[in-house]
Order: sequence, then C-alpha cells, then structure tokens
Amino acid sequence: MVTLMKPPVEELKSIVGEGNVLMDPVDLYCYSYDSSWVKSMPDVVVRPRKVEEVSEVVKLANKHRIPVHPRGAGTGVNGGVVPRNGGIVIELTRMNKILSISPADLECEVEAGVVLGELEDELTKHGLFYPPDPASSSACTIGGTIATNAGGMRGIRYGVTSNWVLSLEVVLPTGEVVRTGSRALKCVAGYDLTKLFIGSEGTLGIVTKATLKVLPLPEFTARVMAVFDRVDEAVALVSKIYEARVTPLIMEFIDRNSQKAINKWLNLGLPESGAILIVDLDGSEEGVKKQLSKLEKVMREAGAREIKHATTSEEKDRLYQARSNAYPSMFKLGKPNVLVEDITVPVSRLPEAVKKIYSIVEKYNLFVGIIGHIGDGNLHPNIVFDERNRDEFRRVMDCHREISKLALELQGTITGEHGIGFVKADFLPREIGKVNFNLMKQIKRVFDPNGIMNPGVMGL
Amino acid sequence: MVTLMKPPVEELKSIVGEGNVLMDPVDLYCYSYDSSWVKSMPDVVVRPRKVEEVSEVVKLANKHRIPVHPRGAGTGVNGGVVPRNGGIVIELTRMNKILSISPADLECEVEAGVVLGELEDELTKHGLFYPPDPASSSACTIGGTIATNAGGMRGIRYGVTSNWVLSLEVVLPTGEVVRTGSRALKCVAGYDLTKLFIGSEGTLGIVTKATLKVLPLPEFTARVMAVFDRVDEAVALVSKIYEARVTPLIMEFIDRNSQKAINKWLNLGLPESGAILIVDLDGSEEGVKKQLSKLEKVMREAGAREIKHATTSEEKDRLYQARSNAYPSMFKLGKPNVLVEDITVPVSRLPEAVKKIYSIVEKYNLFVGIIGHIGDGNLHPNIVFDERNRDEFRRVMDCHREISKLALELQGTITGEHGIGFVKADFLPREIGKVNFNLMKQIKRVFDPNGIMNPGVMGL
Repeated sequence: MVTLMKPPVEELKSIVGEGNVLMDPVDLYCYSYDSSWVKSMPDVVVRPRKVEEVSEVVKLANKHRIPVHPRGAGTGVNGGVVPRNGGIVIELTRMNKILSISPADLECEVEAGVVLGELEDELTKHGLFYPPDPASSSACTIGGTIATNAGGMRGIRYGVTSNWVLSLEVVLPTGEVVRTGSRALKCVAGYDLTKLFIGSEGTLGIVTKATLKVLPLPEFTARVMAVFDRVDEAVALVSKIYEARVTPLIMEFIDRNSQKAINKWLNLGLPESGAILIVDLDGSEEGVKKQLSKLEKVMREAGAREIKHATTSEEKDRLYQARSNAYPSMFKLGKPNVLVEDITVPVSRLPEAVKKIYSIVEKYNLFVGIIGHIGDGNLHPNIVFDERNRDEFRRVMDCHREISKLALELQGTITGEHGIGFVKADFLPREIGKVNFNLMKQIKRVFDPNGIMNPGVMGL
Repeated sequence: MVTLMKPPVEELKSIVGEGNVLMDPVDLYCYSYDSSWVKSMPDVVVRPRKVEEVSEVVKLANKHRIPVHPRGAGTGVNGGVVPRNGGIVIELTRMNKILSISPADLECEVEAGVVLGELEDELTKHGLFYPPDPASSSACTIGGTIATNAGGMRGIRYGVTSNWVLSLEVVLPTGEVVRTGSRALKCVAGYDLTKLFIGSEGTLGIVTKATLKVLPLPEFTARVMAVFDRVDEAVALVSKIYEARVTPLIMEFIDRNSQKAINKWLNLGLPESGAILIVDLDGSEEGVKKQLSKLEKVMREAGAREIKHATTSEEKDRLYQARSNAYPSMFKLGKPNVLVEDITVPVSRLPEAVKKIYSIVEKYNLFVGIIGHIGDGNLHPNIVFDERNRDEFRRVMDCHREISKLALELQGTITGEHGIGFVKADFLPREIGKVNFNLMKQIKRVFDPNGIMNPGVMGL
C-alpha cells in the first residue's frame, strides 16, 4: 500500500521546527539500525515535542502514503524500528517528561520518551518501583517497552509490561489522538485496546503518553548466587523451587560461555562454572531469611557446588551488572553481530530446551552463550556471528529456525519479551497459525487502512 | 445483520445429541436471565460436550445468520448472557474438566465450564491458587470470568483475569477453532489476541479451553477488621496504607447499609458502624506480624474505633462470607432487583467518590449499600429497586447515569471488573470515546462478519 513518495520536508519543518527535521546522511545513518544487524536508511527524521506535532506529522504521512517509523532509544533486538521502506522516522526521545508520580494512587504518568532508568530513579525517591525492568533500562524508553511489551528480570513475579499499563495516549495512523483505559487501577470497559496497542510494535499507532501502575519498594531483598558444575542441574532447579513453594523475585541463568564473555569485558570475577543462577528474594527481613534457608536446601539438593550470598550492595550490584551486561558482552568476542533468541517454554521443559539448543548450535558450528530469565522459562541464547560472512549468516538463520521450531515443539513461544520485528517475522505465522495471523492483518487494516505505520514489522 | 430465522433444531440435535437440545419453555426460561433484571427467551439451548460440537453449532448458526449466546453459570450482573434477540444459547457447563495441574510449571489447563470454586479446591490440594476470585466463585465458570475479565478481592495485588490467562482455545464466529498465546508463562508473539478475547463478553468468539497461570499458596495470612464511625475516614485510609508501604492482599469496604443487609440475612454479627474495612496481609508469619503492627498504627491514626483480628479460621471465614454475600443479601431487603455499580477511580479520589454517590442516590430517593474492593478504587454501590415500578426504574436509570458520569469526572471507569453487557452499554461510547468505540465495532466485524456472536452486548 505504501508508495515511495519523498516526504514533504518543508511541511514537516513547519510542524516540528527546522532544527528538528534531520536530513543529513550522517544523521540519518544513526536512525538506520537498532541492536540487530537489520539496517535501512530513512528519508527523514523528525523529532516532535508534543502529541499535536506527532499527530500533524502522521496526518501528513497518511495523506501522502509515506511510511512512518516511531522510534525510542533503538535498543530493540529485532529491527522493529528500522525503516525498511525508508520514509519518516518519528523519534520520541524529546517527549521525555515524567508528568506525575502519585504514591497515594500507586501510579505515575509519563511521556513516551522517558528513559526507563530515569523513571526508576525518580520512583525510588518516592519509595516506589515500576516492575518491568529490561536489561536495557538505562537507555530504553517507556514507549519502546510498551511497543515491544518488554519484560525483564522481575517478569517471574510481575509479568511483562502489559500488566502495568493503565492507560495510553496514542496517535492513530490517521493522525487522530485517542486515550485508552483509565487512571483507575483496573478497567474492563470495552475491548482491551490498551493491551492491543502494547506489543503491537508500532504497527497500530504511536504511543505518546502512558499511565503506569507502580508498587511500594520491597521492604528487604536478598540476592544469592548458586554455582553449578552441570548446566542440566541448574536448569532443573527452577521447577524444584516452585514445588518447594519458594517464590523468588528474580531468577537468572548464566551459562559458562556467557560468564566468560562477561568476565572478559567487565572483569567481574564470575566463577566460570557450568552454570550460575542468581536468585532474589523479597519481603520482610525475617520472611526472606526463612525462604532463603528453604531455597538453599533446594539448591544444594539440586547439586549446587557453591552458594554465595551477596551481602553488601556492591556485591549485589556486581551480580546484577553481570546479568544485565551479558548480552552486550557478547559483542566483545570479536564478531560484530549477535542474534538474541527469546524462546520461552513451560518451566518443566527447560532442561530439554537447553540441552537441545546447545546441540542445535553445535550442529551449525556456531558459538552461543545462553542466559535467561529462567524463572519464567525464558531463555536468551546469544549467537555471535559476522553477517558479512554469508555462509555463517546462512547457518545462523538455519539455526534460528531450528531453535524456533524447538520452542513450539515444547509448547512455548519464539518470543517471551522481545517481540518479532523483522528478524522473527517469517516464523510468526507458523507459531500463531494462519487464521490468527490473518486476524492480525485485518486488525492492522482497521487501524491503518493505508498501511503507513511501521510497514513490514511482524510481517504486516 | 442478524435475521430472526428459527434455529434448525434437527441439525442441532444431530450435533450435540437430542437430550442436549432444550426447547421446552420451562427450560428456556432458565436461560432467559442472569443476575440483572434483563430478560429475554432464547429459541433453543444446546449443551455441547466438546469443542468440535461448539464449532459445528456455530458454523450452522453462521450459515443461517442466527444469533449465538455463549453462557456459563449466568452469574453476570449486566445481562451479558441474555439472548436479547432470541436465537441459540450455547451452555458450556458440560465442558467442565480440569485437564491438568502442574505445580512445576505454575499452570493449569481447564475447560471453559469448570466452576472457579472447584478449580480452587483442586489447586489447594497442590498448594496452589489462581488469583482471580470474584464473589461468585462458588458458582461462576472460568469461561464466564474470561468473557467478563473478572476481578475479585485479590485484585488489589493480582489485577483482573487477563493477567492470569496464558492461552485460550476459542471457537470463532465462523466456527474455526484457534489457539492463542502459548503454554509458556509469557508470550509476546504478535498482537495479544488472548487479551483481546478476554473481556470481550462473548462478542468475538466462544472460549472453550484456557491455560491459566497459578501461584504457590501464601505461607501465612492474617485477616483484620477495622471499624469506623465515619465512612470518609475508612475510605481515606486506603491511600494512607499505600503511603505507609503496606501492601495488603485484600482490602474490602462494607458500609452501614450493607452491614445491616448482611446481618439480616446471614446473622454474621457485623458491628453496624459507619464502615468496616477487612484487610488481609500475606507472607511469612514474621513478616505479616510486622506489617500488621504498621497497618494497625495507620488504621488507628485514620480514626478506626476498633480493630479486630480474625484469629481462628471460623472468624476468617465469617468475614469472608460477609463480604462475598453482600451483593446477594441486598436481594433480601424486599425488592426484587439490584443494580450493581462497578465504578473504579484512582484511590486518592475514593473519598470524593463515596460522598458523591451517597448524595446522588439520596437525590433520586433510592436505597444503596456500598461495598467495594477498595484497595484498587473499585466501588460497588448496590441499588435496590423493583423494575415493575416504572417511576422507580426511571430514577434508578437516571441515578446510574449520574454515578457513571461521576466515575469519568474522577478519571475512573464505569466498570473495573464486571463488564458492560446490556445494562451499561449506553454509556460505553461516552467513556471510551467515539473513535475507540468505532475501532471496537470494526474489530468486531473482522471476527464476526455476520454479527451472530452475542449481538447487542456492549452496544455492538
């Protein structure tokens, strides 16, 4: 549906101001990629400051049938913000105001361009926190986390972003501005349009503002690391922890290759064992201590060779840094690209999943480090490669397809929290089925009759 | 779109068996109503046992353009299952198998007709629970809670049903059977069709099976009742509790009129004060005790004249019974009908909401008892009336509109957990706006091109 007409630059300048329309190839290059290897140059980048400006830009694009690509910080890993058909990139990072924080209502209101980590810092001052915490939180924007329905380490307890968004302001592909949901902590009035926008990866509209539910900070947390010689023992521990009725806040898995990569880059002194698990417990101090002794017992029975308590905040931070830098550290191993898988399987199928991933990767003669939010069955095999090596790239793609098939065989999904973008679009109809994919395409057409919003993403 | 053609009874009999096709007016009458005053007779009721049967019935209905009304236990309060245009009621209560419970995966799989309370009992045996807990849980079906996106007392901590459903099997209005989501604890592959079906009140398809996320039972819970002379003090307490960083599992409000109604019917010996709050805390025993002393301090400072601890399980049950029977007890006051409002507002607006509700109800010379899941700002004013008294009915409807307007003025919603049905359909476009309502209508058309699925519900 989308034409290749060039954007009406003068009109764009009159909407957002001349300084907020970028045309220089050097500037445009910065908007041609995300964290994946997918690349494509936009024709123009606009940097609006207000929802009215976003609306005007979209109206113009819709009139001229020009592709529009909303973009936050570009930390996504599947190419979802890459302007594959050129057109207009709408960068939302100037819309970065925290509009309100209300401890009495357990909520806050923010513009889409607010950086998640900055919101976290502000909330902490009020004794609050916002549960979704992707590893990119120091850079990613709220709008991006909503577009991808991002998760994070606390997903095991609190699920993904969609559980925490009460209301959205959205610019539709026609330029109309709507508000979904309400400021109430729950709202079931009509179809859940809020949750339909969340995770739609910019294909149904542009989120400009959000009301988020927040929680009081836990009274006390403890962080513990269990070191395993054997990876299968570490992975099998998860179900055992649930069966023992211990409910951690965080449960993270780091395999040997990932440990090595992290140590090499950050020198954090991880033990370099078959696998480590990092587990957080929270609650009252007494309660946590009790759960901790239960947890340790289960860990030892499961084969942990060592259990370390992070007693100081430095030690806690070090373990957190290790886990949250596992993905970027893979880029330091000498190859320019990393494919991050995001498969998520029922927890009891984890041992089978991990074993088979290693054997698939080995078959294709590739290098992988597996990390994961293992508490909810979410594994991130990070496969390093050089996309300029066509043979290697082909092997990576074949390997990716096989891992995706594995996820479905184990009754799981190819994506637990990262989304589809371009990288995983081919496999989406296979996961959800042709009928569901066709429903998606028709829903897309309802919102975006001219197909201007992020065309191609998710195969739409 | 829907015609008034009579259902092809012989074909229906060949699908579900003769004994599962009901045509006798006495039988049909039982399917003509729910808990509201909305009534309308179906032409025929079918009682399928398998998804294939549901699919065949829907295909037939779609071919002949006959309205189809899925029905669980009929405990809804807004007429959502009432066959306003006649047609076929598909009763799902024979599809009542609990298919699996997996403590290792924190999930279970059930057919749509499983009674929520029966699932709870089974889960308890495995040391698990399913968070959504509407007051009707002893009767309502899982399918009904999914159709309405039901909440309950634990909503303050765990939100509504949509947070807890991993995957659905749905018969589309064309008769096609699809599966949404996955068995993984999180899944963001494509548009969130699972959450689009949840709360769509049978207008997009018929849920026949669901995979639900469950949690380990809390180690320890405490229940405490605070008695207030003044209702405004009780209501203002909620924000104070959050500001003190106490996070209860349950926080319930019962006003004087509701207390009287409950005592009259069940003789539970409630104190009959301005208002009572029932609060549950959970966690480790030590942790709960610590939170409890914090909570009591806040309660006393807020003006509680008395704080009672439910120390035995009988006392705990008595308070729970009081709250969960508040709505049915209103039917015992001498009038045949109860309008249950479900407005939900930001917690800090609760004092204003409650005050204004009383004054609106007084203006229309009606009788109200207010209860509510006050921890998430959800109020249930129960207004008793006799729909045969046309003057009174008109006043009830005027009062309802005014309370609905109030909800929006306070940045809340007309429905936090009950849904729209027929009773609240008129007001829906006003809450969500014409653009959103039009999107809903078009989404409905994508799924149900012939408009056979529960026509009229939500104004669709």
